[in-house]
Amino acid sequence: MKIINRNVCAAQGFTAAGIHCGIRKNKSKKDLSLIFSSVPATAAAVYTTNLVKGAPLTVTKKHLADGKAQAVICNSGNANTCNADGIEIAEKMSALTAEALGISADDIVVASTGVIGQPLDIAPIAAGIPTLVSSLSSYGGIDAAEGIMTTDTALKEIAIEFEIGGKTCRIGGIAKGSGMIHPNMATMLVFITTDAAISSEMLGKALSSDIANTFNMVSVDGDTSTNDMVTVLANGLAGNDEITAEGEDFTAFMQALNTVTVYLCKHIAGDGEGASKLIECRVTGARTEACAKTVAKSIICSSLVKAAMFGSDANWGRVLCAIGYSGADVDVNKIDVAFESCKGSEPVCKNGAGVDFSEEKAKEILLEKEIVISVNLNDGDASAVAWGCDLTYDYVKINGDYRT
Amino acid sequence: MKIINRNVCAAQGFTAAGIHCGIRKNKSKKDLSLIFSSVPATAAAVYTTNLVKGAPLTVTKKHLADGKAQAVICNSGNANTCNADGIEIAEKMSALTAEALGISADDIVVASTGVIGQPLDIAPIAAGIPTLVSSLSSYGGIDAAEGIMTTDTALKEIAIEFEIGGKTCRIGGIAKGSGMIHPNMATMLVFITTDAAISSEMLGKALSSDIANTFNMVSVDGDTSTNDMVTVLANGLAGNDEITAEGEDFTAFMQALNTVTVYLCKHIAGDGEGASKLIECRVTGARTEACAKTVAKSIICSSLVKAAMFGSDANWGRVLCAIGYSGADVDVNKIDVAFESCKGSEPVCKNGAGVDFSEEKAKEILLEKEIVISVNLNDGDASAVAWGCDLTYDYVKINGDYRT
Repeated sequence: MKIINRNVCAAQGFTAAGIHCGIRKNKSKKDLSLIFSSVPATAAAVYTTNLVKGAPLTVTKKHLADGKAQAVICNSGNANTCNADGIEIAEKMSALTAEALGISADDIVVASTGVIGQPLDIAPIAAGIPTLVSSLSSYGGIDAAEGIMTTDTALKEIAIEFEIGGKTCRIGGIAKGSGMIHPNMATMLVFITTDAAISSEMLGKALSSDIANTFNMVSVDGDTSTNDMVTVLANGLAGNDEITAEGEDFTAFMQALNTVTVYLCKHIAGDGEGASKLIECRVTGARTEACAKTVAKSIICSSLVKAAMFGSDANWGRVLCAIGYSGADVDVNKIDVAFESCKGSEPVCKNGAGVDFSEEKAKEILLEKEIVISVNLNDGDASAVAWGCDLTYDYVKINGDYRT
Repeated sequence: MKIINRNVCAAQGFTAAGIHCGIRKNKSKKDLSLIFSSVPATAAAVYTTNLVKGAPLTVTKKHLADGKAQAVICNSGNANTCNADGIEIAEKMSALTAEALGISADDIVVASTGVIGQPLDIAPIAAGIPTLVSSLSSYGGIDAAEGIMTTDTALKEIAIEFEIGGKTCRIGGIAKGSGMIHPNMATMLVFITTDAAISSEMLGKALSSDIANTFNMVSVDGDTSTNDMVTVLANGLAGNDEITAEGEDFTAFMQALNTVTVYLCKHIAGDGEGASKLIECRVTGARTEACAKTVAKSIICSSLVKAAMFGSDANWGRVLCAIGYSGADVDVNKIDVAFESCKGSEPVCKNGAGVDFSEEKAKEILLEKEIVISVNLNDGDASAVAWGCDLTYDYVKINGDYRT
């Protein structure tokens, strides 16, 4: 397995493009992206659990009912959510894209991200689609990644090469998301492409299983978006025997998918709104995986833990507190906590009580850009990892007056 | 019913005091408080649901098993939580207080608030108790209220006069809490005194029923403290017939208690760490009360809603989003949202979609110190109210480096 270039275009047969079509006022910001597979692909997707759902999700869900897709169209600058004509606009966007590509509208994944509750004007999209289609190229992944960004400060993209049954396959992805949710800049979007051959059933299984340990374990501000969506398109051009059941090939695919999703998770969390550092919480020694996940997420979501990490303050009491109210069934008198980074590891709590630790060493560890909060519940064999970021002045600034 | 002075000392027979004994370094900050009833009182308390509990809570719970108490001793500056000798220290604190007052240690409510995970030295407390007891006065409520403050920027106190069966009764309280939880400055403490005569059983019933709609509906940062405690002492000196069952007298008592608790709730929320304004969320038209509460709390807890309120930004999409992920069973297409304050009311969302509203008027409303987010689910008759505050730069500042 090795990291390669060209994100969503790394897999054979995929091209992409991103342009400024005019949804966003700032002309230097791309706002319309397209990913296209030269041949029909199997497709799988997962969507937000928020009852308030973006119209594009409803349309995409309908299009993916047959497990097939061939293109992804996505705009930024407007989420097309909470609008009376949302479905109509999302369908129009699909139809225009399909027409320009010469494929069926049912094979389009449609997504939108940006302000919610403001009607999305189809005119700039309609006008931009011909240019977008003519711009498709196997080097257009970067443009596509740019076109889906909102408050993101960094591109989120990766691709890797791996083997299935002796055949070289590629899988890559792009993501946007600077918070678990931003109803106004909704939200987390992830588009993954691969040339591995895999049935839509197994692709769906792989994705559902993977996100439980990846995207569902990321939190920037605890909110769950209206427009979250993760999709995978697999066009089979790598020529491996189609994966239709569990086994060695499926495991290899799962590993590759997981490498891509974990990478994107870390980059979404680390680029959380206003974030100055990535926080990874590793929980071990739990009675069950569900318990480990509950504990890890509770810590990552605690405003007080996040603020302490911003201040590089080894405030382990807040970690213990977040475990205590998580709802997980833990024995608080068995809990060990340590802070870790590339500067080393410093145990700060043993058996639920403080230990004599070096504040200086802890500070040095916590001043790093990537921090690990390591928790051992000493109560079983299950474990989990969650990703988040610190809570900073900039988070408040960004969200205090986003619309104006 | 009318508001009167002297908070916990308004009820007959109660005296209080607050001094600096030396737990806190800053000598101008009081750190030890005492409330005393001249006669034994019935007592009731509710405690945090956090699995990590402060040692004083365990000791208080034991002392209140018989439904009786006569004094409250509370220190600030140290939460006596996550310490190996915590129980021992809390018991010692009770015993010393009881000895100085000439009562049984079993009649002491003991509480601590401040940094957790640092051993609490009994020496300054032991040295301070004689002074504290000799300072007891019917005007000492202010000192007692000061002695329990941590990051609070304002005293939280109230007393009211009311009638039960023609007899004048008094009920008053003091509170500390600048967040729902501060594991390091743990936490929300509320001490209420009354001279109404009420059985410990009915007092417990009144308190449990009341907090479900008051203190359990307050959130500053979504965390639940290790040391939260609300206690009521009722010494019966008002001379009303003891309340031993539901009925008119119990209702009158409940109303008085609720006036005190709602007042303290609003002051805790409005003085939330770094808060610049109080946010009250009123949810009506819910199918069930549980649904209304879930929705109200989800809105109050949303970092994005809180940040928008800080910026006086009428960002109703975030309100809708927080409802959508709350887990409550609602029909998103029926939801109405309005922002309100003393400057008026501005509807911003009808039937789950935006309406044409005046940004100027909404801004004027949201620039006030007390804001109401009014949500009508249009789906039933149940309602709920929750209180919170905005998320500000100061919250991050206060919590970014509290210990150092």
